[in-house]
Amino acid sequence: MAGNSFGQAFRITTAGESHGPGNLVIIDGVPPGIPLSVEELQVELDRRRPGQSKITTQRKEPDTPQFLSGMFEGHTTGTSLAILIPNKDQRSRDYSEIKDKYRPGHADYSFDAKYGRRDYRGGGRSSARETTVRVAAGVVASKILKLECNARVQGYVTQIGDIKAEIPDPATITRELVEQLPDGSQNIVRCPDHIAAEKMVNLIDDLRMECNSIGGIAEIVATGVPAGLGEPVFDKIKADLAKALFSLPAVLGVEYGIGFGCATMTGSEHNDLFEPDTSNAPVIQKDVAGVKTTTNRHGGMLGGITTGMPIVLRAAVKPTSSLPIEQKTVTRSGEETTISTKGRHDPCLLPRFVPMAEAMVAIVLADHWLRWKAQCGRISPDRG
Amino acid sequence: MAGNSFGQAFRITTAGESHGPGNLVIIDGVPPGIPLSVEELQVELDRRRPGQSKITTQRKEPDTPQFLSGMFEGHTTGTSLAILIPNKDQRSRDYSEIKDKYRPGHADYSFDAKYGRRDYRGGGRSSARETTVRVAAGVVASKILKLECNARVQGYVTQIGDIKAEIPDPATITRELVEQLPDGSQNIVRCPDHIAAEKMVNLIDDLRMECNSIGGIAEIVATGVPAGLGEPVFDKIKADLAKALFSLPAVLGVEYGIGFGCATMTGSEHNDLFEPDTSNAPVIQKDVAGVKTTTNRHGGMLGGITTGMPIVLRAAVKPTSSLPIEQKTVTRSGEETTISTKGRHDPCLLPRFVPMAEAMVAIVLADHWLRWKAQCGRISPDRG
Amino acid sequence: MAGNSFGQAFRITTAGESHGPGNLVIIDGVPPGIPLSVEELQVELDRRRPGQSKITTQRKEPDTPQFLSGMFEGHTTGTSLAILIPNKDQRSRDYSEIKDKYRPGHADYSFDAKYGRRDYRGGGRSSARETTVRVAAGVVASKILKLECNARVQGYVTQIGDIKAEIPDPATITRELVEQLPDGSQNIVRCPDHIAAEKMVNLIDDLRMECNSIGGIAEIVATGVPAGLGEPVFDKIKADLAKALFSLPAVLGVEYGIGFGCATMTGSEHNDLFEPDTSNAPVIQKDVAGVKTTTNRHGGMLGGITTGMPIVLRAAVKPTSSLPIEQKTVTRSGEETTISTKGRHDPCLLPRFVPMAEAMVAIVLADHWLRWKAQCGRISPDRG
Amino acid sequence: MAGNSFGQAFRITTAGESHGPGNLVIIDGVPPGIPLSVEELQVELDRRRPGQSKITTQRKEPDTPQFLSGMFEGHTTGTSLAILIPNKDQRSRDYSEIKDKYRPGHADYSFDAKYGRRDYRGGGRSSARETTVRVAAGVVASKILKLECNARVQGYVTQIGDIKAEIPDPATITRELVEQLPDGSQNIVRCPDHIAAEKMVNLIDDLRMECNSIGGIAEIVATGVPAGLGEPVFDKIKADLAKALFSLPAVLGVEYGIGFGCATMTGSEHNDLFEPDTSNAPVIQKDVAGVKTTTNRHGGMLGGITTGMPIVLRAAVKPTSSLPIEQKTVTRSGEETTISTKGRHDPCLLPRFVPMAEAMVAIVLADHWLRWKAQCGRISPDRG
Repeated sequence: MAGNSFGQAFRITTAGESHGPGNLVIIDGVPPGIPLSVEELQVELDRRRPGQSKITTQRKEPDTPQFLSGMFEGHTTGTSLAILIPNKDQRSRDYSEIKDKYRPGHADYSFDAKYGRRDYRGGGRSSARETTVRVAAGVVASKILKLECNARVQGYVTQIGDIKAEIPDPATITRELVEQLPDGSQNIVRCPDHIAAEKMVNLIDDLRMECNSIGGIAEIVATGVPAGLGEPVFDKIKADLAKALFSLPAVLGVEYGIGFGCATMTGSEHNDLFEPDTSNAPVIQKDVAGVKTTTNRHGGMLGGITTGMPIVLRAAVKPTSSLPIEQKTVTRSGEETTISTKGRHDPCLLPRFVPMAEAMVAIVLADHWLRWKAQCGRISPDRG
Repeated sequence: MAGNSFGQAFRITTAGESHGPGNLVIIDGVPPGIPLSVEELQVELDRRRPGQSKITTQRKEPDTPQFLSGMFEGHTTGTSLAILIPNKDQRSRDYSEIKDKYRPGHADYSFDAKYGRRDYRGGGRSSARETTVRVAAGVVASKILKLECNARVQGYVTQIGDIKAEIPDPATITRELVEQLPDGSQNIVRCPDHIAAEKMVNLIDDLRMECNSIGGIAEIVATGVPAGLGEPVFDKIKADLAKALFSLPAVLGVEYGIGFGCATMTGSEHNDLFEPDTSNAPVIQKDVAGVKTTTNRHGGMLGGITTGMPIVLRAAVKPTSSLPIEQKTVTRSGEETTISTKGRHDPCLLPRFVPMAEAMVAIVLADHWLRWKAQCGRISPDRG
Repeated sequence: MAGNSFGQAFRITTAGESHGPGNLVIIDGVPPGIPLSVEELQVELDRRRPGQSKITTQRKEPDTPQFLSGMFEGHTTGTSLAILIPNKDQRSRDYSEIKDKYRPGHADYSFDAKYGRRDYRGGGRSSARETTVRVAAGVVASKILKLECNARVQGYVTQIGDIKAEIPDPATITRELVEQLPDGSQNIVRCPDHIAAEKMVNLIDDLRMECNSIGGIAEIVATGVPAGLGEPVFDKIKADLAKALFSLPAVLGVEYGIGFGCATMTGSEHNDLFEPDTSNAPVIQKDVAGVKTTTNRHGGMLGGITTGMPIVLRAAVKPTSSLPIEQKTVTRSGEETTISTKGRHDPCLLPRFVPMAEAMVAIVLADHWLRWKAQCGRISPDRG
Repeated sequence: MAGNSFGQAFRITTAGESHGPGNLVIIDGVPPGIPLSVEELQVELDRRRPGQSKITTQRKEPDTPQFLSGMFEGHTTGTSLAILIPNKDQRSRDYSEIKDKYRPGHADYSFDAKYGRRDYRGGGRSSARETTVRVAAGVVASKILKLECNARVQGYVTQIGDIKAEIPDPATITRELVEQLPDGSQNIVRCPDHIAAEKMVNLIDDLRMECNSIGGIAEIVATGVPAGLGEPVFDKIKADLAKALFSLPAVLGVEYGIGFGCATMTGSEHNDLFEPDTSNAPVIQKDVAGVKTTTNRHGGMLGGITTGMPIVLRAAVKPTSSLPIEQKTVTRSGEETTISTKGRHDPCLLPRFVPMAEAMVAIVLADHWLRWKAQCGRISPDRG
């Protein structure tokens, strides 16, 4: 029942399947007058695109977006913004293997249990191709944040298997560090610690050759976010951000700031102490002084509301479930069998997870920015 | 903007503050004809109540609920169910200390930044007293789950500081193990590993005497939940459960199943293999065979939809931020100062967190159960 | 399922019954810092109150509101604003007459058909006492409109039975004309054409003495509403206003502008022609010139969006269904019987309908004003 | 802000413009397993299609729908159902006339006032081409009503200008009477009183030749709807139906049952008396006896909840505003000018309004049926 929409003031509604005509999103609540182009969408879609490197799936999808509504003369109109990303490489193949068998780690059985039927071709609606349009919507959200708040969101990989990156200060990680190695070549694993990045690539490549896969952790940082976004009680910004990340495929855990590390800390160790903010950062409510905290164990949020400190989140992403090795499973009628999931799969989901996670974080922040304007923004009709 | 409601088919909307007349909830979508009493609410409210043991805050609140709407002759009517829990022990005291100073770890500054003002008495709307009515709503949700699905939710503490409980099988933990020690006395820390429980109590008590506090981890398990609940894409059951838990105060991390442990696993290690389910568990869609998985690393959810396996979640809860020791902070006008938060505080939030977390999990599951009925339940007008 | 909330950015959620402890509303999204008092609520509640004149029901209810949340030092805080209006005059009486019989024109049967049960005391949740809290919420909405837009809403009665008022220009009707007669006495029927008003009072009084009741029409006008409120497609302002009025008890028809009169008009007769607006009225988007229309057959709305012209709506209200005369009906078990609804009833609903309708119109306009701010308001973090 | 969605359990979200690539709808909450074909959609789209007769606009649009998501092997899957209807006849023409001038009766000015900009080609998002996808969604809603309730919705024209149809019993009007004349030819005005129909066609044709247009009234009847649908308070079924109809272009008034006629009636004249229902109509709650009312002045709804009697609504539709005659208006910069709207327009909107209104009524009823199932449907996990 109505689970394909996300957000309140900036709301996305999606449709589409792995092997249908394509994926589409309707974005509601986009401010009018934002300059936007297919090319801007393409830049981020290319970061999510399959086949971008040797450590991603080799499915070939150009992921070329089309505006179906809401654009006029290169700017958003304020009405329903619709984007379609057609599927191209729906390879015709034999689905008899997965039609009646449940793939371990996939939604095959749970879809059957829920609906009594499923589109088994490539996972249907449960396919991660659905995230293409989230990335497209994330571009729109990011532009709102940039134009109205000068805020930005950056994600990167911090761990693959046992290999952990050293990230001294999340707020200093640049897009360039994430996308590019010192020699100018592509940083295909999207880890800004380039020594760890090389080890990660080797590990993933080894597992790929063993027909196996590996999990990892991504971190997402938002800087420049004004203090005061988020709602007390249910729509705490941490709660909406967590829902956003958990709504992505393969995410098994989310934490912010010190995260699970808080379990072993005392209050005196854990508290972030306030100090005056001399950086002249924007404060939305004029009569409130800017402050910052000496540490950032709360990851930029207190009481579910942003503090102006960098927002820092992490998501744990499981290893790809589709494996070309034989595994035990059952058929739709309940009989024991085995399955080996052929096809083109990512040996590690993390590099392509980064743009998806960035998009979802930007969508939440843009939504809460617009929500703040509605309730707390002081604006009168005669001064626009 | 409109962040005080949660859920779609089973929707709760709350109001209330620490030092106002009380807290209240309006529950929308409650099925008619459910037997319900103030006494049933009281049982769970007593588990959340302050002053229940030496390791909780000593604020005295009877937390006696009143039905304001939606009940008739001991049963729900199906219309708006409203519950008020009056505040009693709003001790008149001097608030000048916190009126103009920001307490570290609290929402004081973020509320000021958002609204330009705040009710500083006891944290106002950001106080955890708001969770009283969540617990009350959770009782209603639990009754729906019990009556319509025979499902149940159980929470408990698994870690306080460095002390970790041994929980061989989450699905076997009973309410009795959580609430009572072998000698019949109250298990005040709510850890079902009673050896760990004793150590936890001692640790908390030590820190209490040092005017300090400690964090920890709670686990919540739901059994008997039918396969098929949750929505593809945004309202994945894992996403709604995570939002529910993150919407509680002090939660810095949430994971399900193997959680963050998935980061170091390979796909072949991580996959849960399907096998026939001979236990005759309820399957909602009649023509789909019951299955189970040999392991439960996905914590009862695949593709964001329940599988019929036990749902297993964990939340990391930070140490109480209010400390009666002197800490650096700033005033509302931006000047450096110090603060020591007097008053009555929990040295560890975990024991009282358990019923709150159970309530939120029950609310999400009841909501998705009703949503499933709307879309996928086969029912015709003439057979009721 | 979840039908007790109304609005998006300014959202009200209500509970309460005729013979329960009282009625309550939680208002979400109220801007912080609005001065508000119980006395201001009382003024409007008194206009809705039973027993205010000889032509209304004689039930005695002081309708004294209490703030339960969201107020601090005389101003809204921005968090959940909760208001309770306790019931006082729940006369203990014999309900056996209506317990098992369906009152014609009431929701008795439809509630039974929906829920399988009902609170039969005074109609339970279907009682018009529920509208008390709408009136209270309307006060908050009106203050937002006044403070942020300088807009105001005025309702009045234009027809009772065959007696029609002459209203040359709806935009000029003042509160004083509606509430007071030239001699300073109370205008108990709330018709600003005072000659018609006298006839209306006589008609109602005659019917009251005959144990009968009479229908009528109310008109609601909003002036000063900025152009640009409302959403294309589903949330057209006319659609939300119509839903708001139809959600009130006893409303059988709603029209705006020329309304049903458009059916017999040609396009050249019906079109409102644009002309420059020299009145310097506020235009929200600065680079758009102010315009007005020579006529106002579209009642201040074009394409579902406000034009800056006065918004003019009318609602048809049925005669009170509760009659102390014997009428045919059936019992819950389907047997024929008769019923005569004793008790205290309004011989005409219109005088007390006026403040309810004003409240609902104000709520819709305030909601759309906040929604406009979210999407189209230009505001940057550093200028508040 | 987020005004392009409608419904809760059955929710439609739309996008598209007059001169963009097409219009699209995402339908959320569709029960799985419903057989559905492009051909079924086409039947209803053809009834709404421009160019269907001499009394409609001559724009040529095949309105051929495409499924983009949610269908598999001829049945709905239960996931997002997306339908695209491409635009074909976006005639390239000179828009300079309307680019900077406001067309009387259109949304040109109100869009500029709201957004500061607009897509002026054919009205952009305010074009009635947007209703194509509502009609498509209405087909899905109608199938749910037919399959799960055996209910059906029928609309027809009852008045054009001063010509009024005689409709002795709305519940007996068949699709055939509405679509076909006794001689088997097309009933192009969709009035089931065929004598009135002929006069209506002549009137419209005369006005078309005079470059003018005419208004009218349509009636929509739903039969077989189970008693018990709709929610007390805000989501009364009458309120949601009214919003649905008012959300359609050109609707200036909506009434149900006796409608505005109630204003001149006394309570004893107006009440519908209950009597036993011997027709064995479906009652959803088994222990409640079926009843009917002798008359149907409440149009099938009491207290905002259906009674099982036929639901009868009427909508007043204004004359087309686009006229090829010269009319006074102003430019975007506020200067006086004149405009004559060339192009292809309907001389009367009513014939094509009928399928739009039917679709919206079906969407509301299907939504409330699913909502009823969620809350009040008795269904247990083990009996599906």
